[in-house]
Amino acid sequence: MTQFDVLTIGNAIVDIITRCDDDFLVRNEIIKGAMNLIDAERAERLYALMGPAIETSGGSAGNTAAGVASLGGKAAYFGKVAEDQLGAIFAHDIRAQGVHYATPAMGQEPPTARSMIFVTPDGERSMNTYLGACVEFGPEDVEPEVVAGAKVTYFEGYLWDPPRAKEAMVECARIAHAHGREVSMTLSDSFCVHRYRAEFLDLMRSGTVDIVFANRQEVLALYETEDFEAALRQIAADCKLAAVTMSEDGATILRGDERVTVPADAIEELVDTTGAGDLFAAGFLYGYTQGLSLERCGQLGCFAAGLVIQQIGPRPTLSLADAAKEAGLI
Amino acid sequence: MTQFDVLTIGNAIVDIITRCDDDFLVRNEIIKGAMNLIDAERAERLYALMGPAIETSGGSAGNTAAGVASLGGKAAYFGKVAEDQLGAIFAHDIRAQGVHYATPAMGQEPPTARSMIFVTPDGERSMNTYLGACVEFGPEDVEPEVVAGAKVTYFEGYLWDPPRAKEAMVECARIAHAHGREVSMTLSDSFCVHRYRAEFLDLMRSGTVDIVFANRQEVLALYETEDFEAALRQIAADCKLAAVTMSEDGATILRGDERVTVPADAIEELVDTTGAGDLFAAGFLYGYTQGLSLERCGQLGCFAAGLVIQQIGPRPTLSLADAAKEAGLI
Repeated sequence: MTQFDVLTIGNAIVDIITRCDDDFLVRNEIIKGAMNLIDAERAERLYALMGPAIETSGGSAGNTAAGVASLGGKAAYFGKVAEDQLGAIFAHDIRAQGVHYATPAMGQEPPTARSMIFVTPDGERSMNTYLGACVEFGPEDVEPEVVAGAKVTYFEGYLWDPPRAKEAMVECARIAHAHGREVSMTLSDSFCVHRYRAEFLDLMRSGTVDIVFANRQEVLALYETEDFEAALRQIAADCKLAAVTMSEDGATILRGDERVTVPADAIEELVDTTGAGDLFAAGFLYGYTQGLSLERCGQLGCFAAGLVIQQIGPRPTLSLADAAKEAGLI
Repeated sequence: MTQFDVLTIGNAIVDIITRCDDDFLVRNEIIKGAMNLIDAERAERLYALMGPAIETSGGSAGNTAAGVASLGGKAAYFGKVAEDQLGAIFAHDIRAQGVHYATPAMGQEPPTARSMIFVTPDGERSMNTYLGACVEFGPEDVEPEVVAGAKVTYFEGYLWDPPRAKEAMVECARIAHAHGREVSMTLSDSFCVHRYRAEFLDLMRSGTVDIVFANRQEVLALYETEDFEAALRQIAADCKLAAVTMSEDGATILRGDERVTVPADAIEELVDTTGAGDLFAAGFLYGYTQGLSLERCGQLGCFAAGLVIQQIGPRPTLSLADAAKEAGLI
């Protein structure tokens, strides 16, 4: 029985977002455009240097689940927060979006994960993530009936950072495939690919993962090449379906010998790229689980990504379903 | 010795902001445009009904202090949070804005105050405030040297809601006047005026307060009249200086027989009125403490208010000083 279109699994994070200039990144040794992992001590030091901020629920896969639900899809999420105020905010926001979320919160220490996100004038976001309670996520948090009942189970490459989440992922993939479902992942970040290249390639080549999302930098990092076309050919060979985003150049979808390229949506003003990849995945997977064409899936991905980069924060503040209907996409 | 241009005092609140339609307000008996005081139980019930939200530091006087600092003024703030994550966010944001803030946080219960703010499609905000730790604010939180060193001490009428804050205000006014400083207040909200009309009038008529900020509804409520001109004449008689805002009609400043009216700034899109009055006070008091003309003070008030209503949240996300310089106002 299908209960969900998409189950997403990831680090449950509250974003703390501010603007800064490029000098701030340089002075504080923050790698621009990347997800920088930080410990509790650096989190405190960096927060003291950070300007006034706003808080919003985030986490890559959490944003994707919220996007699927906002488009009208049935979404579920696994991810770990602590029993604290930020954890309550995270749980509220994802449930209020209509996403099934029942992972138990775990004590007060370590606290709920937060990512300090610095948005430079060019709209690029640079993230500094303290994983906190996410390190407690493990196989015991898998809800087997949710995995069994989801058309696609999707997880973040970022989950290879905490110690035991990968065990949970392998178990989820096993359950999903046993029920004839598909498994998907995002490569998350080019530095994350550098950390776990061999494992990610093994997930793809072993058939543990069917559908892979990546951006240009991530796919180049995966195959350690500067030749994008060569990287595209390799990822098409390594998984059943790959969706590769290329910022303002749109996205290319590869399935065997089939290749579909869709243009990026025109945008009025690039405000904040936070959530762009997450919302591309949301739009694509919503379309995919509704049985739409690869082209339409790609269009929905570009559409959702195009909306979220014209606002502050990684989750759409308006109904994506209404917007996509108005645009004639669904 | 002058250490600060403006000291502001108020309920220290984290805002939880979402959009909703007018029906939601009706169904949940939220008075539109008002500050609705709620208890912990209703706060929980309402949060469960609330859509996905963003969090940002708020509190009327806190927003005003942030605005003064953003304009380049020296600002200080008194207000009470708890030792919890929302309290840490509040303290971080106001200090990161350059505001002196040293009120000690107080335990974990009651928690830091929050206001659930629902923004309707017309941009109007309707607030639902759980006062939490604010009820602990009292005379022991007054830093006498800060009051003595601030050109203007400004407080919210909202401070009459918690039990002991008013004692602190009377003490602050005494210290300020003993040092030749001025005392200012905002009437805050027309329902707040209804609750404390006699006390507010007494503060003005006794000379405890010199400068009063109000909007049209509040000044009408104060004098229980529908005749705006009559209300303006009365408030001019009851305090040394009054600044009355009139939404899209700008503001009128009254000092004795002197009257200056300034137009509202043209805006591109009304997004969220949260913080409009607070930022008017910030702009006005910044100008006033720099010795600018009443007209320029009013222009700065309208300018700062006009900027904040074109964004989500009550505190400016850009430098007001830069914006005001670009507009030729400072």
